[in-house]
Amino acid sequence: MSNFDLIVTGATIATASDTFQADIGIRDGRIAALGSDLGKAARVIDATGLLALPGGIDAHCHIEQESSTKLMTADDFYSGSVSAAHGGTTTIIPFAAQHKGQSLREVVRIAHERAGPKSVIDYAFHLIISDPSPQVMGQELPALIKDGYCSFKVYMTYELLKIDDRQMLDVLSLAREHGAMTMVHAENNDVINWISERLLSQGHVAPKFHAVSHNAIAESEASRRAIDLARLVDAPLLIVHVSTPEATAAIRDARNKGLRIYGETCPQYLFLTKEDLDREGMEGAKFCCSPPPRDKAAQEAIWLGLKNGSFEVFSSDHAPYRFDDSGKLNAGPNPSFKKIANGVPGLEIRLPLLYSEGVRTGRLTLNEFVALTSTNAAKLYGLHPRKGTIAIGSDADLVLFDPEWKRRITTDMLHDNVDYTPYEGRECTGWPRMVLSRGRVVIEEGELQVERGSGAFLEREPSPPADTTASADTPLDPAANFGANIL
Amino acid sequence: MSNFDLIVTGATIATASDTFQADIGIRDGRIAALGSDLGKAARVIDATGLLALPGGIDAHCHIEQESSTKLMTADDFYSGSVSAAHGGTTTIIPFAAQHKGQSLREVVRIAHERAGPKSVIDYAFHLIISDPSPQVMGQELPALIKDGYCSFKVYMTYELLKIDDRQMLDVLSLAREHGAMTMVHAENNDVINWISERLLSQGHVAPKFHAVSHNAIAESEASRRAIDLARLVDAPLLIVHVSTPEATAAIRDARNKGLRIYGETCPQYLFLTKEDLDREGMEGAKFCCSPPPRDKAAQEAIWLGLKNGSFEVFSSDHAPYRFDDSGKLNAGPNPSFKKIANGVPGLEIRLPLLYSEGVRTGRLTLNEFVALTSTNAAKLYGLHPRKGTIAIGSDADLVLFDPEWKRRITTDMLHDNVDYTPYEGRECTGWPRMVLSRGRVVIEEGELQVERGSGAFLEREPSPPADTTASADTPLDPAANFGANIL
Amino acid sequence: MSNFDLIVTGATIATASDTFQADIGIRDGRIAALGSDLGKAARVIDATGLLALPGGIDAHCHIEQESSTKLMTADDFYSGSVSAAHGGTTTIIPFAAQHKGQSLREVVRIAHERAGPKSVIDYAFHLIISDPSPQVMGQELPALIKDGYCSFKVYMTYELLKIDDRQMLDVLSLAREHGAMTMVHAENNDVINWISERLLSQGHVAPKFHAVSHNAIAESEASRRAIDLARLVDAPLLIVHVSTPEATAAIRDARNKGLRIYGETCPQYLFLTKEDLDREGMEGAKFCCSPPPRDKAAQEAIWLGLKNGSFEVFSSDHAPYRFDDSGKLNAGPNPSFKKIANGVPGLEIRLPLLYSEGVRTGRLTLNEFVALTSTNAAKLYGLHPRKGTIAIGSDADLVLFDPEWKRRITTDMLHDNVDYTPYEGRECTGWPRMVLSRGRVVIEEGELQVERGSGAFLEREPSPPADTTASADTPLDPAANFGANIL
Amino acid sequence: MSNFDLIVTGATIATASDTFQADIGIRDGRIAALGSDLGKAARVIDATGLLALPGGIDAHCHIEQESSTKLMTADDFYSGSVSAAHGGTTTIIPFAAQHKGQSLREVVRIAHERAGPKSVIDYAFHLIISDPSPQVMGQELPALIKDGYCSFKVYMTYELLKIDDRQMLDVLSLAREHGAMTMVHAENNDVINWISERLLSQGHVAPKFHAVSHNAIAESEASRRAIDLARLVDAPLLIVHVSTPEATAAIRDARNKGLRIYGETCPQYLFLTKEDLDREGMEGAKFCCSPPPRDKAAQEAIWLGLKNGSFEVFSSDHAPYRFDDSGKLNAGPNPSFKKIANGVPGLEIRLPLLYSEGVRTGRLTLNEFVALTSTNAAKLYGLHPRKGTIAIGSDADLVLFDPEWKRRITTDMLHDNVDYTPYEGRECTGWPRMVLSRGRVVIEEGELQVERGSGAFLEREPSPPADTTASADTPLDPAANFGANIL
Repeated sequence: MSNFDLIVTGATIATASDTFQADIGIRDGRIAALGSDLGKAARVIDATGLLALPGGIDAHCHIEQESSTKLMTADDFYSGSVSAAHGGTTTIIPFAAQHKGQSLREVVRIAHERAGPKSVIDYAFHLIISDPSPQVMGQELPALIKDGYCSFKVYMTYELLKIDDRQMLDVLSLAREHGAMTMVHAENNDVINWISERLLSQGHVAPKFHAVSHNAIAESEASRRAIDLARLVDAPLLIVHVSTPEATAAIRDARNKGLRIYGETCPQYLFLTKEDLDREGMEGAKFCCSPPPRDKAAQEAIWLGLKNGSFEVFSSDHAPYRFDDSGKLNAGPNPSFKKIANGVPGLEIRLPLLYSEGVRTGRLTLNEFVALTSTNAAKLYGLHPRKGTIAIGSDADLVLFDPEWKRRITTDMLHDNVDYTPYEGRECTGWPRMVLSRGRVVIEEGELQVERGSGAFLEREPSPPADTTASADTPLDPAANFGANIL
Repeated sequence: MSNFDLIVTGATIATASDTFQADIGIRDGRIAALGSDLGKAARVIDATGLLALPGGIDAHCHIEQESSTKLMTADDFYSGSVSAAHGGTTTIIPFAAQHKGQSLREVVRIAHERAGPKSVIDYAFHLIISDPSPQVMGQELPALIKDGYCSFKVYMTYELLKIDDRQMLDVLSLAREHGAMTMVHAENNDVINWISERLLSQGHVAPKFHAVSHNAIAESEASRRAIDLARLVDAPLLIVHVSTPEATAAIRDARNKGLRIYGETCPQYLFLTKEDLDREGMEGAKFCCSPPPRDKAAQEAIWLGLKNGSFEVFSSDHAPYRFDDSGKLNAGPNPSFKKIANGVPGLEIRLPLLYSEGVRTGRLTLNEFVALTSTNAAKLYGLHPRKGTIAIGSDADLVLFDPEWKRRITTDMLHDNVDYTPYEGRECTGWPRMVLSRGRVVIEEGELQVERGSGAFLEREPSPPADTTASADTPLDPAANFGANIL
Repeated sequence: MSNFDLIVTGATIATASDTFQADIGIRDGRIAALGSDLGKAARVIDATGLLALPGGIDAHCHIEQESSTKLMTADDFYSGSVSAAHGGTTTIIPFAAQHKGQSLREVVRIAHERAGPKSVIDYAFHLIISDPSPQVMGQELPALIKDGYCSFKVYMTYELLKIDDRQMLDVLSLAREHGAMTMVHAENNDVINWISERLLSQGHVAPKFHAVSHNAIAESEASRRAIDLARLVDAPLLIVHVSTPEATAAIRDARNKGLRIYGETCPQYLFLTKEDLDREGMEGAKFCCSPPPRDKAAQEAIWLGLKNGSFEVFSSDHAPYRFDDSGKLNAGPNPSFKKIANGVPGLEIRLPLLYSEGVRTGRLTLNEFVALTSTNAAKLYGLHPRKGTIAIGSDADLVLFDPEWKRRITTDMLHDNVDYTPYEGRECTGWPRMVLSRGRVVIEEGELQVERGSGAFLEREPSPPADTTASADTPLDPAANFGANIL
Repeated sequence: MSNFDLIVTGATIATASDTFQADIGIRDGRIAALGSDLGKAARVIDATGLLALPGGIDAHCHIEQESSTKLMTADDFYSGSVSAAHGGTTTIIPFAAQHKGQSLREVVRIAHERAGPKSVIDYAFHLIISDPSPQVMGQELPALIKDGYCSFKVYMTYELLKIDDRQMLDVLSLAREHGAMTMVHAENNDVINWISERLLSQGHVAPKFHAVSHNAIAESEASRRAIDLARLVDAPLLIVHVSTPEATAAIRDARNKGLRIYGETCPQYLFLTKEDLDREGMEGAKFCCSPPPRDKAAQEAIWLGLKNGSFEVFSSDHAPYRFDDSGKLNAGPNPSFKKIANGVPGLEIRLPLLYSEGVRTGRLTLNEFVALTSTNAAKLYGLHPRKGTIAIGSDADLVLFDPEWKRRITTDMLHDNVDYTPYEGRECTGWPRMVLSRGRVVIEEGELQVERGSGAFLEREPSPPADTTASADTPLDPAANFGANIL
């Protein structure tokens, strides 16, 4: 066992549960040994003083994705994956997004075409289901789940994406049967439209009114409704990019009752507020995302949700649009907050910001940080134990993280293709010194070390289908249903 | 002051707050004096040993109403009002129901045509808004509110009636501005349809499956959603015919927070269960209403809700369909639970059953009984103090109620035009001996004493419009909205 | 019926439920008629433009009471009752307070000796039980309950007054059996002492530290504990002078579950904050009471509790100590917050302040105001319907209240024997013009019209003892107790 | 690195976070390597088909402990540790229990005298503080914490053990300052005594009445109170042997708010009910423990608490008393439930029962099982990462667990010194095949392999003292305290 391709020595290793000192022996891209005096290797990296963490998994990012209005993100799979890697992320799960009428197989084919030749780190795809037609639900989706595309996102808002409650029940029910995970963008579309119309009719067009139109109740209501639908059919559900205290509490309450309801939040809900949308001129557009940043009290609730298990996953929801006509300012004549491209970039600063403000302040333990940025996503999305931990047999995806490295965030230092960062000027302590993916050194001394397209597609495992007999907790328990089993 | 048209002596008077002994002097249809030795009167009624209660107000009943599928109720305004009167109800507020495309003015005109010549007791109309068109919302509805039609009901389910969340916000917002009350039938239409389709596809057509399709979550979810929408626009809202513990709790929680959210429940949720729908053959159809009766635990939660203020109003939701081709069994070929006419009768047994099982058991005080069956409805719907109490100046609508009268409920003893009662055979203690409306003796010795059409239409008062500046609790507080006031 | 001692004409009458116009005919001290043109009377009072309200009942006030440390209140039954009457209160229920070792019969005798010759309005006594000895529990208390002393207060704090949880169970259990009401001063004695000791050891002696030592958790904890004890034995319980949001919520939660748990709050928790204790020098001592005033958020929670039914009763907790050596500043050498006489005066401003800030602002309806200041106390403490309402047969205790009378509160205008008011300088709109007790005009044109000692003692009715079989909700249900019934 | 003392091959390793295949190289009692083809070793154990789990930590067990009434447990450190080892537990943390008046140093000395020569596995001691005298609090306890005795238990019930709320604040405050953990037995002593007295006075002496006297409210109330006290001083707290749904919810609620409140439960609350106490004659005495087993609904709530994070720790609360005069039946004349020795044995069946009913049924994941039986206790009590995980540098405490081994539990098969088991006859799937402690094979083929006294004492690390500046959430925040910091 003494011949390794690479040995990392001297680091303090952290998993979601443990923190310990060991050398890491890597062979064939996998972690082959943990111990000391591991023997010989083609290369030895001295990581003394650094943390060795499981490579970050960004389970929510938009890369080389066309919006439903045909706006292409500024990042393609090259710039996106390079930026991710620089920030300590070694796996991304962007979206293969269906437009209405499109075949899911076609959607997946296009995603592969885009990612394969460019990504420098490993990737999987969540599907976006905007058109759950009989073709999709009856044939394509079950087959794709078997092929490893075992998670999909649905929208409760956006005219061109949203599905209704009945379609949601179909999706959740199918997911339950085939062992897939449903993610939901939970905002009440009618509420947003109703407010928007009133604002626009009063001439309120500035970016800040985006935050008004996406009222907290729109999100909280839709979150509760999505939970109710999942509860009805006993299906797992993950609510993405949660920003409100009420939605956070709804998730925690559901899980307290034993339901498989999970939550995700993002840097913008910890570090930005709606006041950021009220900056001079169009500057506020840089902070427009959905849901929007809320207020200080909401930030505190989100921090607490990271600590108390309301949130399993901390993702970026990286949605890269430049601050020019190609992106944020593509409105054409009569611009208004309704026309601002939605989303903020954040792929690269995800780990550093959470470490700096979460771990160093004592809000989170180092192990909780690992769980939130990597392990939990691997578990929920069928990548564990291949990804998400430092254990024998797992892929050697490692971040050698310097907990004392102080940096000031600027647009210049980042590697995405966006021309601004909403965190411009923010001080941050803790940053990756080196990043490895499957044993390959991807980032070293701030430089990319690998080829375009050297990342690999990750086929995933659906979870075993849930029990066919509904549990006592299940509202649709056949015993309570006069003998009918409608799951 | 010593000349009265009528004096009632010897009764124990109960209002929503007080219980006391006094004679009641009535002049010109109104209560003119309370005291003893009131003097002379054209008629004196000795009510010794009886309770004198404010005449019941049934704020939720369907009388001479065509369903959206053109099914006419079995009761017209004559049989309906006579049945109500026999049960101690002196005011009914049935619905003037808009079908899609219809003018509200036309709807109101038809309602008057039907009620005017027939009703033997006083009546008002709630409007049903199924088509909130610009014409309706911009002109008809504001004008009708001013004319005294200051409450309306909207549906979240039924294909031909339901409005969407955006329309609901329009309705609530208009109601807030003009001082009207919105009532909502809260069930999630998609959930019901999704389950129904699965049941039917498995061949589950029996009446009992109606209770399966109208899952408790459908009601609880829609109730929470309706509350969220009302909260958003700071409007009052009353959720009708609540049957689930969760919806009950949602109402109580909302009111605990200071919101103007109210609830109503009905006899069928106290005295029936879904097992009643599982009777032999089509018998179960007699118990099909929406929401359906639930289980024993839900009954307890509903009783508790009557006690703890979750519910302000106890109504019948009288929906009279005969157990034959004209009503419950009008399905035609391929009958199924989806085709059973929805609703149960209950206009006449409302007071007796609640008194017998509520007051005599100690669950409710006599004053709470009065509030639930009469006073609160008068207050919420703009009839107080004309109706709903025994006080100087109020209409002399009185029930002389014998608290010791034991009767067994049978179809025969009731005066509606339905050929069954869901409470057949149930023992009940406490029944009206005499009923007065505006000083007229309407029922005496079990016989109707008045003419068809002698009831009067009640024009109501809108509440003063809410403050134009939203309160601190209002989510749409302009101060929090960058200056925009969208209410 | 046309001969009355007194007729009040033209007022708008409000009860806990109704508001209406009527003349009030009074005979033999009771309300004999309501109506118009009532006929002749020895005296007619024109109350046009005024509200006629049931006389206020102050169910929590300390008058001519010696504290456990032998400090006598500044008000005796003359000054106290006169002050109450000026403020619209026609019934007071002060305390007959047992010191350790004292016979309750003796305690009651002394109370009568003090009140009888002096009180100008009617009165009853709550007992204070500080020594539930076998003599007290086995003989005196059951007999006194039968004699009409059917409410008593116990303390969870104060060294010389407090009883422990076991004694509390004895008291609650006895109260349940005999139909009495237990009131509790709920603060955790150990918590207060533990904090006080730390503060004193650090030299923190200023009045403001009183608010620190009486931490909100001390009150919230003890309130929850008291509720648990009452729940255990299925006894009614009223928590007095509630000041914290958590205790408020605990009461509401208990009642939502159907428990007979009630709450009381006081003006000091609506209009003062702990910052008032931080005034220059010893000024802060004027605001020292237990529990202490909290903060603005707590004030809002208390207002909400008045609205949502957490509180049934609004009392003064009038505890009159002068701001001199005889009272607040009686500490002797080494003064500290521990030695400041506890309590604030408030007997006279109770109705005006709540009307001004509650009814005029729209927070409370006029009927809710009546319920909180009069009716509910009458019901809970066995005085209804004799007191607490305007109904035939009830005592003619009336406040003719001018809703438009603007006054500025000053010590000079008040009639108690305290030399300050914590509300000095506060503007207030709404004040009594005339006050009647049993038909006697007590206050007119700001002048007392009756003799010392003309008030009467009120014997009260115990409630019927609760069912001997515990309900399904009762934790001590014998069926769940292997056959043992321990209630 | 290729020379090991021992290599375990072929097992599936599970930690609190991960599950993976690897060989385990052990040197000098520690885990030195994880990988494959690890090289040579003095001994190789083939664990193919077995799970390799971190050795169980039983953080709550009574071994060779004298009760406050001088009753000695049936197990000494030999029989106790041997029984533990057979069941897969490699670390025990029994109690060094102070009797009133005793020096803690003396208590610790005695504990060492008893354990040192006998224990076959490693051990630490929780202190029991029954007498927080100035000597104890001022000197002994701080010094003992520094010496590694950094956890202690206090009682809210039992006459000879209980401390009052003020003493609890002292203990919690000291624990906070010195980085120790306080454990609490939370039952309201007065409630138990009050009920017991009533039962005994009615002649209810049978064992089953133990469950009546220890009413669920006694536990729920005391748990809430303990949480409030810990919250007041911002100290961590662990509530042991939780049995009620309400206490479980209180813990979860506290942690949801970010408080450091933890919970423990035990096998008796998952697998027994109070009906077990109602067996023929004195049989019920075998199931008497405090708190007592509750009902089926409570069992479900406890299972849910294990899943949703209400409980961090699953311990045995092993309290070994024989079913004879030396233990359970030592009552002497006039036996009653009050005299039955409290507690049930469970040291050996802890892991097998939870695995069988928790993991195999799908209620818990394997990783959750590891966390609950080992890792979390190590973390909370300062033993991690030395104990509680399988990681480089950790002690080689391993259970080689056969997940398919079916056994029927009988008294005969167990190795403690108790003559019964409450789980007699229960089928169980999953049992340890081999147990290692610090690399030593302790149990193999059902036989003990090591010497008396070969276990080692574990000195523990206090947690870093909490921040001296209280957080914004702390009720005693000096900013809110007019400048006084009383923590």
